[in-house]
Amino acid sequence: MQKRVVGVIGAHECSAEVEEIAHNLGRKLAKVAEILICGGLSGVMEAVCKGFKIEKGLTIGIVPTYNKEDANKFVDIVIPSGLGFARNVLVVKSADVIVALPGKEGTLTEVAYALQFKIPVVSLNSWDIPGVIKVATVDEAVEEVKKRI
Amino acid sequence: MQKRVVGVIGAHECSAEVEEIAHNLGRKLAKVAEILICGGLSGVMEAVCKGFKIEKGLTIGIVPTYNKEDANKFVDIVIPSGLGFARNVLVVKSADVIVALPGKEGTLTEVAYALQFKIPVVSLNSWDIPGVIKVATVDEAVEEVKKRI
Amino acid sequence: MQKRVVGVIGAHECSAEVEEIAHNLGRKLAKVAEILICGGLSGVMEAVCKGFKIEKGLTIGIVPTYNKEDANKFVDIVIPSGLGFARNVLVVKSADVIVALPGKEGTLTEVAYALQFKIPVVSLNSWDIPGVIKVATVDEAVEEVKKRI
Amino acid sequence: MQKRVVGVIGAHECSAEVEEIAHNLGRKLAKVAEILICGGLSGVMEAVCKGFKIEKGLTIGIVPTYNKEDANKFVDIVIPSGLGFARNVLVVKSADVIVALPGKEGTLTEVAYALQFKIPVVSLNSWDIPGVIKVATVDEAVEEVKKRI
Repeated sequence: MQKRVVGVIGAHECSAEVEEIAHNLGRKLAKVAEILICGGLSGVMEAVCKGFKIEKGLTIGIVPTYNKEDANKFVDIVIPSGLGFARNVLVVKSADVIVALPGKEGTLTEVAYALQFKIPVVSLNSWDIPGVIKVATVDEAVEEVKKRI
Repeated sequence: MQKRVVGVIGAHECSAEVEEIAHNLGRKLAKVAEILICGGLSGVMEAVCKGFKIEKGLTIGIVPTYNKEDANKFVDIVIPSGLGFARNVLVVKSADVIVALPGKEGTLTEVAYALQFKIPVVSLNSWDIPGVIKVATVDEAVEEVKKRI
Repeated sequence: MQKRVVGVIGAHECSAEVEEIAHNLGRKLAKVAEILICGGLSGVMEAVCKGFKIEKGLTIGIVPTYNKEDANKFVDIVIPSGLGFARNVLVVKSADVIVALPGKEGTLTEVAYALQFKIPVVSLNSWDIPGVIKVATVDEAVEEVKKRI
Repeated sequence: MQKRVVGVIGAHECSAEVEEIAHNLGRKLAKVAEILICGGLSGVMEAVCKGFKIEKGLTIGIVPTYNKEDANKFVDIVIPSGLGFARNVLVVKSADVIVALPGKEGTLTEVAYALQFKIPVVSLNSWDIPGVIKVATVDEAVEEVKKRI
């Protein structure tokens, strides 16, 4: 049986505050999903992987380059896609549900792809595009993921 | 010397009104660009290709499938990418400047990619994302393209 | 620390004999690698996943479509890439070492990519291209993988 | 009506002799095809583009990076795919017929993809894989292209 996969998207550079949120999110998501998938890089991606791994979850990072070393050190399995930003499609499509944290245009491409694919997007202070599920706290985000995974 | 390339993005299904706008846009863009690149399908893409070809421009369509027959009949050169929606990256990155017409989430992925790549996006009644150049008419859109190509 | 990943490539349709070999290969590879990555479909891919899972290994399938249901039932984690045959690059590049079983041109693209990436290719009655490590039995193949992972 | 497209594949580094052959091939292909598509880089790709342009053909280069400047100067239209070696699929699939000149594993991936797609591959001293059409001279290669485009 296929594993339950949650995807988390957000900026590769983030404030200490967002990093803390991502870390907590990672820890709590590990209670509801077996696999975390993300873009595998720094910032939000690193913090969420770290939290998810502390709670014994398995992390997958689909990085844009061919270099496995580009993944943050909390990624268990690296897919070194070499696809550049086209890898965003794979991050999103591999997940059963997405949590979006703050990010720029790259994050927006992922939000938009998820909506196009009809994959639920839980937006925690991230892009506010028609169709996303807006939440204000990590706990609410995890609650929404739990319902949909 | 590389040719000047304009990209046009928008829905594969559109109203008669948007189709008319796309057609006019295509005709007028042919005065300022040598090549039109788009996703190669129906709706906005077909109408803009038709207009561009009437004025002797050359049209390229990067379609999501492996089937050249999926391109509309006004596409001169089909790139049957087989990449699905990941082909959106290529449509955007191949252009020197983008005009966005109304579209859904697929169009939003392209707007976001263009902004991420620092490629100018002229939005004619399309997504209003920070960074786009908003215009209200075809003539204004063509004027903005002309300045940037 | 990143997991040790073995990739297995081969035809999506195969004889009962090759299926048996793939199954045995899967079982024995689970002793030397934590993760099996493959194209996720039927034939060689299904048989090797089945064997690998019997021995408690974790299987990843990168399928060409957007449909997770296209993966065989022994895939734990599906990456529904939507990239068509371009997904072959990702299958190969994600692995630390590749075992090639009999296959057609699709398998040849993967052998060639692996050689280009300098990823070792153990060929068990598969394509004989300069640079591959030719072996005649499952045990020899596993031995070669063990040395290189 | 879609244009007739010939694809040429081969190494990005080549001997003066192969360069001369590629150049002559480009000149002669311009008599039978309107569009030349290739990987857009140096070596065989540059020489064939140069020849094709001398005879007023239009050249398209699908480069692996996001940088249009990576294309050789005889490419009229650059598709800066950012897909890495996955762009090989697009080079091949966009062509009605392929001519393969000497190349390494990258060229082999393209030969194999073409065979998988049932696109004719004319091999001029390149890989000898079951299914390719082997020829010994530029004139023979052009003759085979002419029959199939």
